Amino acid sequence: MNIEKFVQKFRDTLVNQCGVVGSSRILVALSGGADSMALLHLLKHSEMECLAVHCNFSLRGRESDEDEIFVQNICKEWDVELITERFDTTAYVTENGISIEMAARELRYELFNTICREKEIKLIATGHHGDDAIETFFLNLARGTGLKGLTGIAYQRDSIIRPLLFATSQEIIEYCNQQSIPFRTDSTNHETTYLRNKIRHQIVPLFKEINPSFFNTMQNNMEYLTEAWQIFMAEAVKVKEEMIAGTGDSLLIPIKQLNEHSQKKSMLFEILQPYGFSGSVIHNIADSMNGIPGKQFFSQTHRLVVDRYNLVLVPKSETDINQYYINSETEEIDQPIRLSIKTFKKRDDFSFSVNPKKVHLDADLIDFPLIVRTPNAGDRFQPLGMTHFKKISDFFIDQKLSLVEKENTWLLINNDDIAWVIGHRIDNRYKITSTTKTILEVSVMH
Amino acid sequence: MNIEKFVQKFRDTLVNQCGVVGSSRILVALSGGADSMALLHLLKHSEMECLAVHCNFSLRGRESDEDEIFVQNICKEWDVELITERFDTTAYVTENGISIEMAARELRYELFNTICREKEIKLIATGHHGDDAIETFFLNLARGTGLKGLTGIAYQRDSIIRPLLFATSQEIIEYCNQQSIPFRTDSTNHETTYLRNKIRHQIVPLFKEINPSFFNTMQNNMEYLTEAWQIFMAEAVKVKEEMIAGTGDSLLIPIKQLNEHSQKKSMLFEILQPYGFSGSVIHNIADSMNGIPGKQFFSQTHRLVVDRYNLVLVPKSETDINQYYINSETEEIDQPIRLSIKTFKKRDDFSFSVNPKKVHLDADLIDFPLIVRTPNAGDRFQPLGMTHFKKISDFFIDQKLSLVEKENTWLLINNDDIAWVIGHRIDNRYKITSTTKTILEVSVMH
Repeated sequence: MNIEKFVQKFRDTLVNQCGVVGSSRILVALSGGADSMALLHLLKHSEMECLAVHCNFSLRGRESDEDEIFVQNICKEWDVELITERFDTTAYVTENGISIEMAARELRYELFNTICREKEIKLIATGHHGDDAIETFFLNLARGTGLKGLTGIAYQRDSIIRPLLFATSQEIIEYCNQQSIPFRTDSTNHETTYLRNKIRHQIVPLFKEINPSFFNTMQNNMEYLTEAWQIFMAEAVKVKEEMIAGTGDSLLIPIKQLNEHSQKKSMLFEILQPYGFSGSVIHNIADSMNGIPGKQFFSQTHRLVVDRYNLVLVPKSETDINQYYINSETEEIDQPIRLSIKTFKKRDDFSFSVNPKKVHLDADLIDFPLIVRTPNAGDRFQPLGMTHFKKISDFFIDQKLSLVEKENTWLLINNDDIAWVIGHRIDNRYKITSTTKTILEVSVMH
Repeated sequence: MNIEKFVQKFRDTLVNQCGVVGSSRILVALSGGADSMALLHLLKHSEMECLAVHCNFSLRGRESDEDEIFVQNICKEWDVELITERFDTTAYVTENGISIEMAARELRYELFNTICREKEIKLIATGHHGDDAIETFFLNLARGTGLKGLTGIAYQRDSIIRPLLFATSQEIIEYCNQQSIPFRTDSTNHETTYLRNKIRHQIVPLFKEINPSFFNTMQNNMEYLTEAWQIFMAEAVKVKEEMIAGTGDSLLIPIKQLNEHSQKKSMLFEILQPYGFSGSVIHNIADSMNGIPGKQFFSQTHRLVVDRYNLVLVPKSETDINQYYINSETEEIDQPIRLSIKTFKKRDDFSFSVNPKKVHLDADLIDFPLIVRTPNAGDRFQPLGMTHFKKISDFFIDQKLSLVEKENTWLLINNDDIAWVIGHRIDNRYKITSTTKTILEVSVMH
């Protein structure tokens, strides 16, 4: 590697991509790993006024403390002011019910922002490199997070800059070695998820076999995608301004106007994704715009109703929040329990299931969306084989269910009827009869 | 799989994505494989007037002929008019110096177009499915073919429609099995390249481990990318009209105006890619727009000069065509011979190479771009160790080179000087001396 070229590229990136002009004050996120050590070294030797911050997440016992001591010594040697902070990450995880990666992220950025406010610093630099960006691209591609996700990692967003995105992880290590910069290796790497590792160690190497310059090709791909996304966003902003009524939590989106837009699906995606709708649900919403009105779709926080003239977006009501919906296109749900749903024509030789975990209902009686919810006081149904109603609570007693079993029982609801006490008994009204033409099969998956 | 849903989805795709209205006459490309057999069956049962065409590429001897007999029998049984044509593909490959896949493609589409003209048919249907589109996406991602390549395969382009793109390869086979449609399996699958197989059997399965619904996610990804590309193209067309002077083979692109466009790189990509410039060369052109004027870049057919005010694009002259260029950023070239190029600072302990395939030149004398070309009559240089000039032809005689060796010898040219008779001897003027500061290392790779 040509060190001078590398340093020049770093400085060009700092100016052209990160928008850093002249000698600025920069807060450097310093873990002690090769990326952040190279970052601090490069910034210091590019006439930047650096202040370092180190987060001790107390996740790797002695190793975490050794990292802290390591950066303290280096900063003293390099004459860089250092702020260190210890976090009880495990407690934070327990309190907030989030993943370790998410907890570390939240704690880190909260600290960074506090320091920036107190010290009046406007720029935070992180050591993300080009391989990180490629992995992010593939993660987002696999998850379907839309065009934005395919732009990789931004060189600059708000106060955060990432001037090492031009470099590979290997180039950074070479830089450290050539400049005799010491660095620590994180033996566990809590921030590297299982999926990221799969992409790093299995998927990317296969692409490099296809194209040895895959890193450069992906840098170009992501650059083009970023520019395409910018053009796209300009159009999306225009559409939002011209088309949509309502603000914040509730929106009215006129169906006719949206239909006339030649890029209606991606526009709808830009409008609805901030409200937590996934790519596939948005896809279904777009398809249902030209169907019979009345369909409903749900995100974690919002409900969207396709009415005659508008898509109506409102926050979920309290009742909604404890209800889970199954649309006609749904083939599987994961929440609150894993169910698989199929529809098929009844054949003459059909014999229905006697397994209480896999049931067959008369599909002609079903009116989507179906709802999955917990029992309410007073719920009644006609257990299979009976012609009169029985209270759910009595049914549970008959079945000798334990308290835990009762609490974990879910109901499948069709038009306010209990169609199935999931895992236990279907309603007699929904059973397959000689006149049934289409069958809905619902199974509990493991 | 729900057959009725599948058929409905096929018909929806035919209308909404392929723009087929009412009962149309369609030419169906019928190989006899599952995809094209399902396609013909679905089209026939969707009230389309089908005419089938089968290409016998004579690539698999008896198997090819059995395929032909198979589709003849099926078309008789299904009452579908069939046109068959035999090609001597191997001869076509030899004559045109192209790959088997390319030859099959050219022969096929030439035949399709002829039939469409003669029979006045406006639509050609091919059996490409969703898995093909995903593989195309990854191939183009790996090669860096720009945003367009990431839109996968189009449902409709000119007269060609691909109504099976919504389906997976497996769904198509299930459809064939459920409908008792016979099909042939191509044991060699000449049209499946090595790279496509790598993507199909190694890369896609890894993504499916990350996301079991990867097929649907990718369908959505490609749909969003297609819409983004449409918006992007509308902008690119506008830029081309407003900014560029000249037509066809020669263009003038004003640097200042292009610099002011916030998506200059992707705009430049759209402008230059049709002239055969690769993504990475276009990237370098964009970077050099703000540097010293005079840089030149080459595609197979065109030369681009960065002058003071404009990018000037002209067709390559005859001399250009037999010359290959090495720019200052070039690290490797593959054509006309494989060379690797490095620059580094001379250290005190430097000892230059005595290997005639790996040479060290004084980089301070080098003025990019370097040129690689064959010897011309009258070419002279100063062989290392000599202070006078010698004719190349005399040098070849001294070296006792065979005719074949002479014909395969290339020269590395710097500013009209021969700096290296590649693989044999450097020029004395370019040798490393005590005053050399920077070294250019050029090696012949195997």
